[in-house]
Amino acid sequence: MIPISLPGASDMLLGDIDKNSRSPVYRQICDRVVSLILQGVLKPGSRLPSTRSLAVTLGVHRSTVIRSYEEIRALGYLESRCGSYTTVRRRSRSPTALAGKCRIESKSEQGIDWSTLLGSDVCESGADGVPVSKDCIDFERLAADPRLAPLDDLKRVAHRALMDNQGQALDYADAGGFGPLRKLISERMELHGVSVSSDEILVTAGAQSAIDLLFRLLVKPGDSVIVESPSYGMAHELVCLHGAKPLEIEMNPDGMDLDKLAGVIAENHSKLLYTMPNFHNPTGITTDQAHRERLLALCEQHRLPIIEDGFEEELKYFHKAVLPIKSMDTKGIVLYVGTFSKVVFPGLRVGWVAAPREVVLRLSHLQHATCLSGNTLAQIIAGLFCAGGRFETYLRRIHRVYRRRMQIMLQGLDLYMPPGVVWTKPSGGYTVWLTLPQKSLSEQDVMRRMSSFGVKVAPGSRFYARPRSVVQFRLSIACVDEKQIITGCRRLGRALGGG
Amino acid sequence: MIPISLPGASDMLLGDIDKNSRSPVYRQICDRVVSLILQGVLKPGSRLPSTRSLAVTLGVHRSTVIRSYEEIRALGYLESRCGSYTTVRRRSRSPTALAGKCRIESKSEQGIDWSTLLGSDVCESGADGVPVSKDCIDFERLAADPRLAPLDDLKRVAHRALMDNQGQALDYADAGGFGPLRKLISERMELHGVSVSSDEILVTAGAQSAIDLLFRLLVKPGDSVIVESPSYGMAHELVCLHGAKPLEIEMNPDGMDLDKLAGVIAENHSKLLYTMPNFHNPTGITTDQAHRERLLALCEQHRLPIIEDGFEEELKYFHKAVLPIKSMDTKGIVLYVGTFSKVVFPGLRVGWVAAPREVVLRLSHLQHATCLSGNTLAQIIAGLFCAGGRFETYLRRIHRVYRRRMQIMLQGLDLYMPPGVVWTKPSGGYTVWLTLPQKSLSEQDVMRRMSSFGVKVAPGSRFYARPRSVVQFRLSIACVDEKQIITGCRRLGRALGGG
Repeated sequence: MIPISLPGASDMLLGDIDKNSRSPVYRQICDRVVSLILQGVLKPGSRLPSTRSLAVTLGVHRSTVIRSYEEIRALGYLESRCGSYTTVRRRSRSPTALAGKCRIESKSEQGIDWSTLLGSDVCESGADGVPVSKDCIDFERLAADPRLAPLDDLKRVAHRALMDNQGQALDYADAGGFGPLRKLISERMELHGVSVSSDEILVTAGAQSAIDLLFRLLVKPGDSVIVESPSYGMAHELVCLHGAKPLEIEMNPDGMDLDKLAGVIAENHSKLLYTMPNFHNPTGITTDQAHRERLLALCEQHRLPIIEDGFEEELKYFHKAVLPIKSMDTKGIVLYVGTFSKVVFPGLRVGWVAAPREVVLRLSHLQHATCLSGNTLAQIIAGLFCAGGRFETYLRRIHRVYRRRMQIMLQGLDLYMPPGVVWTKPSGGYTVWLTLPQKSLSEQDVMRRMSSFGVKVAPGSRFYARPRSVVQFRLSIACVDEKQIITGCRRLGRALGGG
Repeated sequence: MIPISLPGASDMLLGDIDKNSRSPVYRQICDRVVSLILQGVLKPGSRLPSTRSLAVTLGVHRSTVIRSYEEIRALGYLESRCGSYTTVRRRSRSPTALAGKCRIESKSEQGIDWSTLLGSDVCESGADGVPVSKDCIDFERLAADPRLAPLDDLKRVAHRALMDNQGQALDYADAGGFGPLRKLISERMELHGVSVSSDEILVTAGAQSAIDLLFRLLVKPGDSVIVESPSYGMAHELVCLHGAKPLEIEMNPDGMDLDKLAGVIAENHSKLLYTMPNFHNPTGITTDQAHRERLLALCEQHRLPIIEDGFEEELKYFHKAVLPIKSMDTKGIVLYVGTFSKVVFPGLRVGWVAAPREVVLRLSHLQHATCLSGNTLAQIIAGLFCAGGRFETYLRRIHRVYRRRMQIMLQGLDLYMPPGVVWTKPSGGYTVWLTLPQKSLSEQDVMRRMSSFGVKVAPGSRFYARPRSVVQFRLSIACVDEKQIITGCRRLGRALGGG
């Protein structure tokens, strides 16, 4: 400990300067002087010793002391006037954190009352809020089963992504997406009957982000957007976020009611139509070729852009593949949204839009303005995963798994559902949609009973913009194995039957 | 080749069925029938043979033929009525792509004239459009130098990210960000004097996305946003995208003119103030402690939220670290934006907001509605990279590199700039801002001359909302090595001196 006499201040104990410490000497001096100021030992106006004299006292080079003083000055604790000593500055406020040394003030009065300022215009999330036990069977989750993830392939691919091209994977990509991935996606679309070139593909951070970008481009507050009823809950959320009105068109067993649609289109000026022709979420319904032709013709006639959400295009494990509406789109009115998230690696956030060139160009601008670039590493990984035939191999594997799961689910429902409950028979995808007989329990009661029987489902109300009297719910086979499905169906039966 | 007699149709050549092919037999039958339909050999209304008779003819199992017919029906080319033969259906339109087999129609008339519908309200990008030669020295790029990327560390870290926790890296993360990374970022903020807990951190897809989310939450069309003049070009783009008006406050040599700011705040109702206190883009100016105190006091007094863009917080390679404004924010009015992109892996798109809990919660909701989740793999990689001390080691290395680059840049300018040109002397970061003497060349001429001398810079007009008469430009040392800097300065000197 070296006591130093500071002219104009009391003697101060600067403490040991440890030249072997990992902390550089200038930093040690800096930390200790600041600490003395914070403790009030050195007060505003107090004079500091000259750099020359302090250097002599501490036995260090003068430049070291000069550097310390510069640091302390930058931190706002010192001031020096020309031809005068350096003195302690009145810093109006101390940092809320001091690199772990001392915490001075806690957050005090709010300068801005954020709760009031932000209001409460959060869209209803539809979360049911029922607590879930640990061994609960999860029929709710609708995303690739992590237990089926092709981890080894992805490790290899990630390694290659980082090895090749001198760190290109760590750099910005074109805002429209990494070129080779755009090409691979356009080739993949070709397999589904859609002819698009790579500049008609925009890579996005998943399908949700794709739909949000399309809404940002096309929807203004007060606009109407036509949606199926029921429809994807997060689509309702986006409609609400953009200040638009949902126009709900009833789902029939073969898809959106096209007679009603014709009426609604004729009577309203709508900006967009949002549809999921395959394995519709939540109902699991797939429309047939004739339905798609008529829907497209209707929208073409009224020049109404269609967002076709092909989120489960790759989940046609029962075969009988109906091609996307986009495959017939010779007039450029279909904005197709695709994604890898529902079949593989949701956490990589890779989706896309397939749309006319002008739309893709505008979406690229928008994407550039709002996030500069997508995630290059993720895009390269997705590209390498597709290019090497790995995706095909993976798809064959999960098709076997999900075909079996869906068969068992449908058998399980046949076996355990009480009379009066009806459900859809999907031709692929993850979801089955159940409707309870009228005059049964309320949705909340049903959810509570299910939870107490250890089974988790998605409540039907989440999929409607307006409340319905009928009680419905969605089951997903995405993340439950065969044994869990059977157990889950039995539990569901008890939960519904004992009511 | 097996000629088959189709009742009600001409004899058709179904071709060889190759049982050893990689393409399954049902798929071969399907492809050939569709092909005959497309060629017009089989016409709408034509009867297909019964599945039984075709199975006998081809020597395959009847179930195989049934499956083929189901596929062809799903594709919309067949119809069957009860108790009647299966006939060819009039498919109103063929797919634009047929899995590479035959392309029928090219895109014809546009159903929607997208150019007209979308209008031309793209914000000015400020791109100069001057072609650039190959050996051009790039003083324009402002992002981590890929040549310095810690590739080996990242490979190790990516491998671990995919190994650990059973594929968690491939799954969705919390919309607010991957928990452990939020914690690491809050600890990192602590090193910069900012005390925030992890639920006051929102992880975003880079700083640009962070600013966009803040704008989405706080700015409505017609609102005013206060920006420095000049300011980050992409901030202007966001102001424009959100339909807001920029209120530009002149930059003095020590930062935004606070007297003018006081006037503007008093006279206008503004929604936000956007500032870059460190190594301001484009000028490179860093404000001192006193400036930050006064700016904060002014905004507190008027309850005006501050977006503090700390994009180069980690680039204080000359030391003399002034702490962020956020470090003094006891009233919760500072919304701090941080990012890894300017120092390391921009392509991973990891940035963050440090803000009051209520704001972070609302931003999380917004992020969930617009993209469900951030990129989990990228967030885990960033976390592992920070946690293991790798980030510190990397920072020490790049600090040495950039300190040297900036010193050489400032020497080079001293050496080669013609009289009358003035420039800033940054205390860190990447950028130097040059102003040409009045009555010199126009910006376009200057850019053209520079290009012809093989040097690329960012034109000053990109950083202003309104055109200026003075000619300015920004130089960045981010991606040029020492030799390139010297050569570049010499070329700049010639380009400007020979005018």
